[in-house]
Order: sequence, then structure tokens, then C-alpha cells
Amino acid sequence: MSDTRKYLLSEDQIPRAWYNIQADLPSPPAPVLHPGTGQPIGPDDLAPLFPMALIGQEVSQDREIEIPEPVRDVYRAWRPTPLYRATALERDLDTPARIYYKHEGVSPVGSHKPNTAVAQAFYNKEAGITRIATETGAGQWGSALAYAGSLFGLEIKVYMVRVSFDQKPYRKAMMETYGAECVASPSDHTNSGRAILAATPDSTGSLGIAISEAVEDAAQRGDTSYALGSVLNHVLMHQTVIGQEAQAQLALADDRADIVVGCTGGGSNFAGIAFPFIGEKLRGGGELDVVAVEPSACPSLTRGRFAYDFGDTGKLTPLVKMHTLGSSFVPSGFHAGGLRYHGMAPLVSHAQDLGLIRSVAHTQTACFEAGVRFARAEGIVPAPEATHAVKAVIDEALRCKEEGVSRSIVFNLCGHGHFDMQAYTDYFAGALQDQPYDEQELAMALAGLPSVPAAA
Amino acid sequence: MSDTRKYLLSEDQIPRAWYNIQADLPSPPAPVLHPGTGQPIGPDDLAPLFPMALIGQEVSQDREIEIPEPVRDVYRAWRPTPLYRATALERDLDTPARIYYKHEGVSPVGSHKPNTAVAQAFYNKEAGITRIATETGAGQWGSALAYAGSLFGLEIKVYMVRVSFDQKPYRKAMMETYGAECVASPSDHTNSGRAILAATPDSTGSLGIAISEAVEDAAQRGDTSYALGSVLNHVLMHQTVIGQEAQAQLALADDRADIVVGCTGGGSNFAGIAFPFIGEKLRGGGELDVVAVEPSACPSLTRGRFAYDFGDTGKLTPLVKMHTLGSSFVPSGFHAGGLRYHGMAPLVSHAQDLGLIRSVAHTQTACFEAGVRFARAEGIVPAPEATHAVKAVIDEALRCKEEGVSRSIVFNLCGHGHFDMQAYTDYFAGALQDQPYDEQELAMALAGLPSVPAAA
Repeated sequence: MSDTRKYLLSEDQIPRAWYNIQADLPSPPAPVLHPGTGQPIGPDDLAPLFPMALIGQEVSQDREIEIPEPVRDVYRAWRPTPLYRATALERDLDTPARIYYKHEGVSPVGSHKPNTAVAQAFYNKEAGITRIATETGAGQWGSALAYAGSLFGLEIKVYMVRVSFDQKPYRKAMMETYGAECVASPSDHTNSGRAILAATPDSTGSLGIAISEAVEDAAQRGDTSYALGSVLNHVLMHQTVIGQEAQAQLALADDRADIVVGCTGGGSNFAGIAFPFIGEKLRGGGELDVVAVEPSACPSLTRGRFAYDFGDTGKLTPLVKMHTLGSSFVPSGFHAGGLRYHGMAPLVSHAQDLGLIRSVAHTQTACFEAGVRFARAEGIVPAPEATHAVKAVIDEALRCKEEGVSRSIVFNLCGHGHFDMQAYTDYFAGALQDQPYDEQELAMALAGLPSVPAAA
Repeated sequence: MSDTRKYLLSEDQIPRAWYNIQADLPSPPAPVLHPGTGQPIGPDDLAPLFPMALIGQEVSQDREIEIPEPVRDVYRAWRPTPLYRATALERDLDTPARIYYKHEGVSPVGSHKPNTAVAQAFYNKEAGITRIATETGAGQWGSALAYAGSLFGLEIKVYMVRVSFDQKPYRKAMMETYGAECVASPSDHTNSGRAILAATPDSTGSLGIAISEAVEDAAQRGDTSYALGSVLNHVLMHQTVIGQEAQAQLALADDRADIVVGCTGGGSNFAGIAFPFIGEKLRGGGELDVVAVEPSACPSLTRGRFAYDFGDTGKLTPLVKMHTLGSSFVPSGFHAGGLRYHGMAPLVSHAQDLGLIRSVAHTQTACFEAGVRFARAEGIVPAPEATHAVKAVIDEALRCKEEGVSRSIVFNLCGHGHFDMQAYTDYFAGALQDQPYDEQELAMALAGLPSVPAAA
């Protein structure tokens, strides 16, 4: 039985500004460096890839960046998203915890990704760009940019990580329905793709490889920008509409967050739910425990090194300081394709370094078990990425039960699993593999971290 | 570019009663007859299959049937659903028409089906039933009942039409995620299934066959009820929350409906959007054009006979007067599996006989073309069933343009297409078949319509 508690905001409560955590951090993140000179890069270095408005957001120290009205207007198609109290899951767990979840799966593409896709498409359109190249893991980001491209009349080219391209063919069909082109990465469309294919013809691909391809594509064409679905400061910032809405909705519930949980691959979903709460704490708010959840098979926050590294496998990007497994690390082909990135957003990495967040890693089998439990209680089938958050939330709720304490736990259900039912099929068939990663491969990838040239 | 117009209601505006069109019809539909005696059936005849509360709703003449609070409570998980003005599609068509659509794809299973699944699960639970057997076409209904079963703690067994079972394996995975059992129909679990398999081992199945299996399953077990996802009066009535909300939302938009469009297979989606508007007209409202859209390959309203027929292929059900292609008619394996039924709901058939609605039929290729156009303009990928409504809406909007008239067109987007991307893939590959149906097969099926025994 049910006792639905859904907290809704009105359309005019869609946030009017994105929240920029850089304004509140006790120390700034390390600068992004040019790999040749070791010097911090400037706006001009990024101009071939991004419109100037987004470059400005990347380095802004303003706490609030106003959301352009045309972007808020598109947001209105599905925002504000609901915040639910997971009453049925609480009963199922017999926990005194109060569990809340934001449901970003109600967007047209079924995930949180359009929050930044729409913004990036808008700024590119404003700058006169007509074509965008990008990469995608599970396809959530590629679908979102294809959707935004169709609304703003932009041509979209998507390099999709091979293992997900094969596992999730329907994401490609969705991108094509929106009018985008989607190819498997590594592809023979770029030099970096051809190099990988020559060395490992059966490469399953990785986000690092697909990024190299998209960056190369964009850099070579004057009409084309590059867009990234996570990692970068401005991308994380666009997602803060999630956490800001959640704060207003918790106030409606007459509650506040004790624990905030988000799954994290590149970091944008995690930042989207967590950064507004961390900002509140930094500005004098109360106690807060923030948990980033990553896959055991790609554990950048829990097992990676906090060091300068390339954002891509082809070493085409600037050097960023982040928790990384090494840009040559290729994770196994597990189902949460959105979490298969060798690094972690510099801002999320920095937040962990500052002690503002903690991180845990879980196997995919444990996560699907949690996801099925959630689906049967709450009625929503989570995307494989989101099951990582669910697993950590259940653990925290059971800890509350053990300790006899009622804490409030807030997480973001970053997408529905309707595109990922093959993963659930595999789970029910007992066919999921849980080998975390190859220790030797990780050691080699870490040994290959770039040395940072001394600044001139 | 976008200028989103979304009309939202508050949770307390979820309708408090279902609307029963039987109270407003100028003449009652023909009685349901016992196939042996030719006598109208009574409640006791249906008692082995349905809880008494639903049997009562089936024959009620009350205009309003109160929605139980536990059902409204579950509805709150996704209702009220938004009504959108399709401003981008209007621009794309350069039409003076005002196009509105309800978006039922925001439900947990992505379609309108939970509106009745939740109600049916509730009444079965109240009656002490512990298990429900049902059929499903494309899997939308099966997923919805599996979802409702998981919320109310009922065991669910789903017989899924073979062609959809093969085309849409992920619907089965979703049912299993909710804890239900799903088998392909015809199956070897029932006498009627085994008989079909013996005659045609490679049968693609049909809703008529799957209904026989589910009815047989339920009739043979004391703990088991049968549930139908469409066709029956009470099922259609549960869907009227859609049209009632749409009426309130059009009032918010300071508009009214000139044309109401719904796709129709068994009839529940169509009735859900259309019946409240038809009722308003019957009670003295203004002009209204109501269009039922069906697939050319299964054209019960446009090419079927209005006659007594069995609801299933195995001839286990009572005789109902409806537009039918004959219960032995097996439609080709087109993608809109939810529209592959040989008959049409008696109330929808009766409404057409009374001149309250008109019907059109479209090929699946034309419908997918319309669906892609809709997706690129409005950002939502429609389910194959829903593309039929989109096709008819675009035709009406273009007629407005030709005639230079601004009419308001309202339709129900009954589900998202995230489970149906194989269909879009086939469409883009030019691999869809459009043969409407075999004329000879139709003639044979119609020749096999049962003769109605003279009442004792």
C-alpha cells in the first residue's frame, strides 16, 4: 500500500540562477594547465572548443549565474521535477530514516542530462555555432544533447562508447529520432579513434577515448563546438537546479537534509544534487554528511590518485587536477555506462580533498539488488547509474535502524531504467560480472600519469 | 526555439470520481449475452473472474463513481499529468490550429495504463484475491499491472502476445523487475494456448489468444482473478481521469476543445481522453468533433462489422456487441502492439453507432513519420500507439491551415516510446511493412462470427 508524499514546486520556482560552488569554497581548485607549457590555460586556449559564455562560466567566481530565460523556458517542459518521500521503501527497510528522492527521470530523455544540454545548446546557438560534437557513455548525455540540438536547430554528432553502443542500441535510435548522428567509439572518423582501433581492434571503448574523438572533431572544424556532459565546472553548475529545487522542496516537507547521496561518474549528477547543500553548509549551515557513490569497477574517488591528468585517452585535453585512475585506464564493460570515466570532476575531487564529501564504491550486482528493491517498493525502475545511489541510501537507512536514529537522507534518482532493461535481464539471469578491475592495469595506468612541465 | 506552455493542476485537483458515460448516452449499449443461452449475463456469471465491485462498475448507470482514497493516493505518484500546448509543432506545421496534448508517459511505467491497473489491483486486494492473470499486447498493460501488483502485494501472471514478446523483450524484464511472471502467448500453460500451438506452431499470437489464456488461468483457480487492460466498461471508465483533467487544464488555458483525438486498440485510451468531452456535449455543450484513430492493419472501427462476437479467440468470453474483425482474425505483427485487437470496446463501438465519434485508419509508416516530426518539434518520443493520434492530429492541423481556420485539437499522448526504439530503428532503416491486412482472411474471420442463440 502507498501513502504518496510528493513535494511539488510551481513553474516560477524553477531556479533563476545556477549555483557556483567556487564562490563558497575555502580554497580554489588547482588551475587547469597547458600540457606543453605547464602554464595555467586562459580563455583563448579553450575558444576553439567552447563558446565564450561557457568559458566565462568555467572560471567564474560569482555565486550565482543567471539562467537565460530561453533556457528556463525549455526547463519548464519538465521542471520543477518532483521530490518524493520514499515512504514505501522506508517501511520495507523498517528504518527510522526519512528518505527523499528527486526524480530527474521525468525529463523527455529520462535523465538529468538535459539540464546542461539545453544550456549548452543555447549558448552555442547564441555564438553562431551550427554543429556540436560530443561523446556519450550509456547514451543519456548523447540523447540529451540530441534533444537540445533538435530544439535549437543544431547539428549533433555523438561518439558513443562501443560497449554501450552494443549494449544499448535503443539510445542510438533515440538520438537519430531527434535528428542526431551517432557512431560507435573508437571510430574510424578521427585520428585518435583510428589509432586505438589499430592497437586494439576489439576495444570496448571508454569515455576517455570518446572524448578524444569528439574534441578532435570539434577542433578541426570551424563550425563545430565541443560539448561535454560532465566533469567541467560549468556542466556541474548547470545541474545545480536539482539541489536547489530539492532544498525548497525539503522546506515544504518541513525537513532538512542530514545526508545527501549521489552516484558519480564524471561528477555532474553528484554535484547537481550535492553542491547546493554543501554551499549552505559552507555559509554557516548545520551538520551535513555527503556521500559520493561510484562503481567498484571504476573507483576514481576511492582508489584513484589526486593528480594532474588528461581528461581523455588521446591526451588532447588540458591537464586537470582530479582523482584519476590514469587516462589510459579502460574500465570493464559494466552496465552503468555513465559511470565509466577514468577521472572525476576537478570540483568534486577538490571537495573530497577538502573533506567536504566522502566516497564509497559498490559492485553492480549489489546495486541492481538495491534497484530492484527500490522498484518494487516505490514503483520506479532506476537507471543502472542511479542504483548506485540507491544502494548507498539503503546502507545508510539500515545504519539508522541499527543505531536507532532518524536521519533524513536525500538522493537524486538521476534517470529511469527504461532503456536499461537488458541490464536487469542480465541481473535476474545471474549473468552480471563483478570483477572490480585489474590491479596491474590500474598500476600501469597510474604509472603513466603525465609529469607536469615546470611553468616557464 | 521553445515557448513552453504547460498547464498543471494541483494534487487535490486529481478527479474525485470516474466519469461513467452510460449515464449520458441517448440509448444504452446492447446487453452482454451468454453464448449458450443468448440471455443477458448477470453479475454471478462474471463472479469467477472479477471482484464484485468491478462487476458493479461494469453495469452502473451512475454518472460518477467515487475513486477510493487509496487509489487517488497512488495516482498522486504521477497525477495530475501535464497538458501541453504544442507550440513548436504548430510552428513546424505553420498551422492556425491550437494543439494540446496530455502526457500520460510520465507515469512510472511510461503509459496511461496504471490509471486502471491501480484501481483493479485495489478492488481485487479488497476482495481478498491474491493473484491476477492477464494478457498484454505491447507490454504496457502488463507492466502497469505488474507495477500495481507490487504496490498492493498481489501475484501477477502475464500472457504476452508472442510478436511483442519477441519485439519488446525489455517489457518482460520490467514486469519481472516488479516481481511479475511473464510468458509468451500462445503458451503451453493453458489448454487454449496449447490448441493454438498445435494448429499453428509459429503463431505470432494476438490479444484475442492471450485473453483466452488469461481467462482460462483465472477461471481454474480460486485465488485468481482476471484483469483486462481495455475493452470493458469499467476499464474505460478508470481512464476518464485523463479527459477530466484535460477539461480543467483547457479551462486554465482559457480554451475549449473543438476536436478530440485518441488512438484506439481496445478503446480505453480513446475513451479516457474522449468520453468526458463527449459527456459534456451530450449534456448540452457545444460543437465537438471526436476522432478515433486505428491502424490500417487492424481496422475494427473502419472496416469491422458491428455485431455480437467473442472477446477472445478461444471463445471463452461472453458475447459482446462491438465493431469486430472476427475473433479469429490475427493482425500482422506491426509495432503498435497495443492496437492489435480484433474488436473494439462496446461503449466505443456504440458511440460510433450513435454518430458521436468518427474513425480513421493509418499505416504504421505514416504514423512513425508523424511521430518523428512530433519528437523533433516537441522533444518527446511517442510510443508507436501514440503516433497514430499524432498522425491524425497533424492531418487535422493541416486541414485547419488549408481552410484558414483556427480550431483547438486535443489529444492524449498515451505513452513514451522509450521501450519501442527498435520500431523507430526499423522505420529509419525503411524496414517497416505496411500491408494493411489480408482481405480473404478478414472475410473468413467475419464469416465465422457467432450466431446469437435465441433467448430462452
